[in-house]
Amino acid sequence: MPMLEDPSVKYDAFPPIHLPNRQWPSKVLKKAPRWLSTDLRDGNQSLPDPMTFEEKKAYFHKLVDIGYKEIEVAFPSASQVDFDFTRYAVENAPEDVTIQVLSQCREELIRRTVESLKGAHSATVHLYLATSDCFRNVVFGLSQEESKQVAVKMTKLVRELTKNDPSQSATNWHYEFSPETFSDTNPDYVLEVCEAVKAAWEPSVENPIIFNLPATVEMSTPNVYADQIEYFATHISEREKVCISLHPHNDRGCAVAASELGQLAGADRIEGCLFGNGERTGNVDLVTLGLNLYSQGISPKIDFLDLNSIIDIVERCNKIRVPERAPYGGSLVVCAFSGSHQDAIKKGFNNYSNQLAESGNKNVKWKLPYLPIDPTDIGRTYEAIIRINSQSGKGGSAWVILKNMGLDLPRPLQVDYSKAVQAQAEEKGLELTNAELCVLFEKTYYVGSETPYAYELVDYSVTSAKAGVRSISVDLRIEGQAKTIAGAGNGPISAFSNAVEKDLGISIDVKHYHEHSLGEDSNSKAATYIGAVLKDGLTVWGVGIHEDVSQASFLSLISILNNLHYKK
Amino acid sequence: MPMLEDPSVKYDAFPPIHLPNRQWPSKVLKKAPRWLSTDLRDGNQSLPDPMTFEEKKAYFHKLVDIGYKEIEVAFPSASQVDFDFTRYAVENAPEDVTIQVLSQCREELIRRTVESLKGAHSATVHLYLATSDCFRNVVFGLSQEESKQVAVKMTKLVRELTKNDPSQSATNWHYEFSPETFSDTNPDYVLEVCEAVKAAWEPSVENPIIFNLPATVEMSTPNVYADQIEYFATHISEREKVCISLHPHNDRGCAVAASELGQLAGADRIEGCLFGNGERTGNVDLVTLGLNLYSQGISPKIDFLDLNSIIDIVERCNKIRVPERAPYGGSLVVCAFSGSHQDAIKKGFNNYSNQLAESGNKNVKWKLPYLPIDPTDIGRTYEAIIRINSQSGKGGSAWVILKNMGLDLPRPLQVDYSKAVQAQAEEKGLELTNAELCVLFEKTYYVGSETPYAYELVDYSVTSAKAGVRSISVDLRIEGQAKTIAGAGNGPISAFSNAVEKDLGISIDVKHYHEHSLGEDSNSKAATYIGAVLKDGLTVWGVGIHEDVSQASFLSLISILNNLHYKK
Repeated sequence: MPMLEDPSVKYDAFPPIHLPNRQWPSKVLKKAPRWLSTDLRDGNQSLPDPMTFEEKKAYFHKLVDIGYKEIEVAFPSASQVDFDFTRYAVENAPEDVTIQVLSQCREELIRRTVESLKGAHSATVHLYLATSDCFRNVVFGLSQEESKQVAVKMTKLVRELTKNDPSQSATNWHYEFSPETFSDTNPDYVLEVCEAVKAAWEPSVENPIIFNLPATVEMSTPNVYADQIEYFATHISEREKVCISLHPHNDRGCAVAASELGQLAGADRIEGCLFGNGERTGNVDLVTLGLNLYSQGISPKIDFLDLNSIIDIVERCNKIRVPERAPYGGSLVVCAFSGSHQDAIKKGFNNYSNQLAESGNKNVKWKLPYLPIDPTDIGRTYEAIIRINSQSGKGGSAWVILKNMGLDLPRPLQVDYSKAVQAQAEEKGLELTNAELCVLFEKTYYVGSETPYAYELVDYSVTSAKAGVRSISVDLRIEGQAKTIAGAGNGPISAFSNAVEKDLGISIDVKHYHEHSLGEDSNSKAATYIGAVLKDGLTVWGVGIHEDVSQASFLSLISILNNLHYKK
Repeated sequence: MPMLEDPSVKYDAFPPIHLPNRQWPSKVLKKAPRWLSTDLRDGNQSLPDPMTFEEKKAYFHKLVDIGYKEIEVAFPSASQVDFDFTRYAVENAPEDVTIQVLSQCREELIRRTVESLKGAHSATVHLYLATSDCFRNVVFGLSQEESKQVAVKMTKLVRELTKNDPSQSATNWHYEFSPETFSDTNPDYVLEVCEAVKAAWEPSVENPIIFNLPATVEMSTPNVYADQIEYFATHISEREKVCISLHPHNDRGCAVAASELGQLAGADRIEGCLFGNGERTGNVDLVTLGLNLYSQGISPKIDFLDLNSIIDIVERCNKIRVPERAPYGGSLVVCAFSGSHQDAIKKGFNNYSNQLAESGNKNVKWKLPYLPIDPTDIGRTYEAIIRINSQSGKGGSAWVILKNMGLDLPRPLQVDYSKAVQAQAEEKGLELTNAELCVLFEKTYYVGSETPYAYELVDYSVTSAKAGVRSISVDLRIEGQAKTIAGAGNGPISAFSNAVEKDLGISIDVKHYHEHSLGEDSNSKAATYIGAVLKDGLTVWGVGIHEDVSQASFLSLISILNNLHYKK
C-alpha cells in the first residue's frame, strides 16, 4: 500500500440507534409525500454566483407551473434582497401555494421574517435551532435546557405574531421547526425539544405542526437515518397533529435513499431542490425522487413531462450544469453506446410496439431492457437513445439508418456497414453524429450522392424473350463513357448479372436479396439490398432506392459495381 | 395540476421480496469489501468519446497506484483494441493485481477471451448470462432451463480452458458469473442457476467462485436490493466457497446506498467506477464508497489522499467532468458561502485546533460543523472552504482576510467590512476571489496602497510633558501639503486625537482599540484597529500596520481621517 499511516483513524464510526422492533424495511412506497422546494433559499446560499432577482422570479414561476405547492423562497431577515423577494412571492403566489421562509431563533429576525409574509394566502414560518452536541457546544455554547427554552420562547413569539394576531387572520399560518443537526442529535433530546415546541404552538389535526428532521450533514448509511425517523415517528405524541418532514443532504451520496427509506419510516414531507442543488453536495434531488415514484406507477403530482425546460431554467439560474449522468435529467442517461445494449433496446422497442398494437395502445406496462422509464416521458426523443462510437455494434448504426433514412438493413448488411462505422469512429476518435452516419452510409454504398460515381445507370429495357426467360438491355455510363450491355436470365436481376458478366467481365453471384417499401402510399420508393459473393468467397453489398422497384434492384447492382471498382 | 392524464399509470411497482427474518438493518459496516474497478470496461462502453490506448494505460496505472487489486480491463473478444489492451494489462500488472475480463456465454468468444489472458499472474474470467424474464424473453428467446444449461456448459468450457488446462498453470485462475439482471430475476431461479454453475466450477474455500449480482438497471429502493442479497447469501450452499459481489447501477440515484446496504446484507465485493462512470447514470461510485468508509474510521485500503490527481486522470480519460456537487470529488463540496455556515466552520476549526494543541496533536477525532471529512484528507486546502459572494456574512470575509493578510479583525470591524463586501459582490453579481477581497480591504481602509491618499503620516514625536500626560507633534501631508499638528493627552492615541481636533477641527472619539502582532518574531509588524464614534453616532474604522506599534496606531487614525475625507 502506498499509504504509510492510514488517516481514517481520526474518524469515529457513527453509532447506530437501538430499534428492536423496526417496521420500515417491510414497507413499500404507496403515495407521493408533500414536497417543499427549497431551491430559492438553498440555491441562493450555496451558489458561487447567486441568482439575480429576475432569475429568482423565473425559477419561482417554474416551480409553481410544474406543481410545487410549498416553496421556501428566502431567509428574509438576512438581506433586503431576500425580504423583497419574499414580498414578490407573497404577492404573486397562487392561492394554493404556501410560501415558506426561514429564520434563526432570534427575536428581531423573527419579527422581520413575519413582516415579510404580511398578506400571504398561506405561509409557513420555519425556525431552526442547534440541538446537536457539536453545534450547541462548538458554535453556540448553549446547554440542552437553554436550547429548549430558546425553542419554546421563539415558538411562542411566532405564534403571537401570526395565528394569535387578529390583524394577521387573512393568512393561513403554518409553523415548521428544525432541530439542527437532527441526524447527529440524541433522539430523546430531539423528542424533548419537539414536545415542548409542540405544546407551545398547539397544532391541530387540520393544521399540523411541521417537524423537519434534517440530515444537515449526512452522517451514516441511510438505514440509520430511517431508524432515526421511525424512532421519532413512533415516540412523538399526538402523531396526527404532526407532519414529519425530511431535509436530507447528500454528503455520502445517499440523500435519495435516505428520503425514500425515511418515507417508509413514517415521513410525510420532503424538502429538497431540483437536481440536488444546495450547500456542498447539495440537498436531496426532487426530480429523482419524483420520477422514482413515477416509474413505480405512483404519480408524484409534479409535471416532469417537459423535463428539458426544467433543466434549462435550473442551469440558467444556478449557473451549474445538470451532470451528464444525473438520474433522469442527465444528457447520457437514456443513451446506449455498446452493441449488446443497443440490440437489446431495439428488441425491447419492437416488443413494446407489438404489444401496444395488439392491445389497441392500452394498458401495456413499460418493461424494456436498460430503460427504466420511457424516454418520451422525460422529453427525450427515441433518436437520442442510440449513440454511435467505436464501441457500438451493428444494431446501433442500423437503428440510426432506419430512424433517419427509413432503411431497414438486413442483418448481414448491418454487419458489413458496422465495419465501416467502426473504422470511421476509430479514425475520428469521437462519437459519430446521426448526420455523419447517414453520409457514411451513402458513401459506403454509393447511393444518393450528387457526384457521379464510376458506374451510372442511364436507362434499361427488359423484354420477355421466351417463357421464363428475360432479356435485358442496359445503358450505362462508365467513368463518363456511354456503354450498353445486354444479357438474359430467368428474372431481371439474373439477366442484369448475366449482362455484366458477359459484356463487362465481372462476375456477380447474387446470394442475398431484400426489398421493402419506404413509406406507405402508392408513390413511395422501394429500397433493395443485394449481397453478391465474389470468387474469393467475400460478400459485397449494394443498395438501391427508387420509385420503380426493378430500377432499385439494378441500382443495387450498380452499387456493387462501384463498390468493386473503388475498393479493388 | 397541469397534467391531463398522469402517465405514471403505465409503470408497475416493483414487487418486494418476502424476507420475514431479515438481519441486515441491524448490522454495521466493519471493513472494506474487495473492490473491482470496472472503469476500463464500462467507461469504454459508455463514453461518447472512448479512451485512446494511451489514456487506458494511464488510467490503468493510476488504478494500480492507488491500490485497486482487481481491475476489469476489457471485453477482449469484442475488438482487437480490447484484446490488445488486455495483453498490455496482463504484461504490466503487478503480481498482486488480478486482471478481469468480460465475455458473453458464447464458445468462440470465451476461447478468444481466455487467449487474451495467457501468462497472467492472476486472472478472472467473467461470464454473464440473461436470467431475468425481460432479457430472456425479449432479447434472447431462451427458457429458464435452456439458460441454465448454457450457463453450466460455458462454465465447464472456461474450466477446461483455464484451471483444468496444465499449460495454463502459471496463472491463478478465478471465475465470476453474473446472472443478468439479477435484481429483476426471480430469486429462486437465480439460486438454481448459481448452484448449477457452482457445481460445474467446483470452487474452494481458498479460491471461491464470484457470484456477481448486478442491478444492471436499478429497479427499486435500495432496501429491496439488500433483501435480495440477504436472500441469496442465506440460501446459497457452501457459502464459504462463494464471494458475493455487487454491481449496482444508479438509475434511481441509490447505487451508493444499495452497495452499502448490500454489504450489510452479506456482500463481500463491490464492482464500480471512479466517480460513478458507466452506462447511462453510471455504475456505483467507488470514490464515494471508499471515502464513506474512511469517514467512519474504516480504511478503504485505497489511497485517496491525492484526490485531485485522481480527478485529473478521470476527467482527462473519460472526457466527462466530475460534477461540482459530487460527494468528496466535487469542487463545491467543502465550500461554504453562507454566513452562518462560515461562522460555524470557523468556530469548529478553532475548537479542533485547540483540542489538537491540548492533546499534543494526537487522538483527536474529527468533528466539525458542516464538514464530514477533513478537507486536507482529500487534497483540499482550508483556503478553498470559505468562499465569498453576496450571501456571505462577516465571518467568511474576515476568514479570508485572516488567512491571506494575517489580520484578525475584531467583530465590529468584521461587520463594517462585510458591508463593503456585500456591496461589491452585488455590484459584480459574481463570487469574489481572495485577491479581490484583499484589494477591497486595502481600499476600504486606505492601507498598503502605493498611491498616496489624502492624509499621509510623515513623522511624529511623542514627549512626556508631565506625569501622566503625553505631548505629540505630528508631521502630516494633507493632499500633498505639509502640515504639522500638535496636541496632548494621557496616552499617544488621545494626544493624537487631541491634535487632530485642535488643529484640523475633526473630532475623533476613540471607542474601540484592538492590536495584535503579525507573526511571532521580534521583527514582526503590529496591526491596530481603531473604531471612532462620530457626532451622529456612526462608527468609522481605521486600520494601521507597522513595525512600530505606536506608528501602527497613528496609521489607524490616519486611516480614519482618510475614511472621513473620502466618504463625506
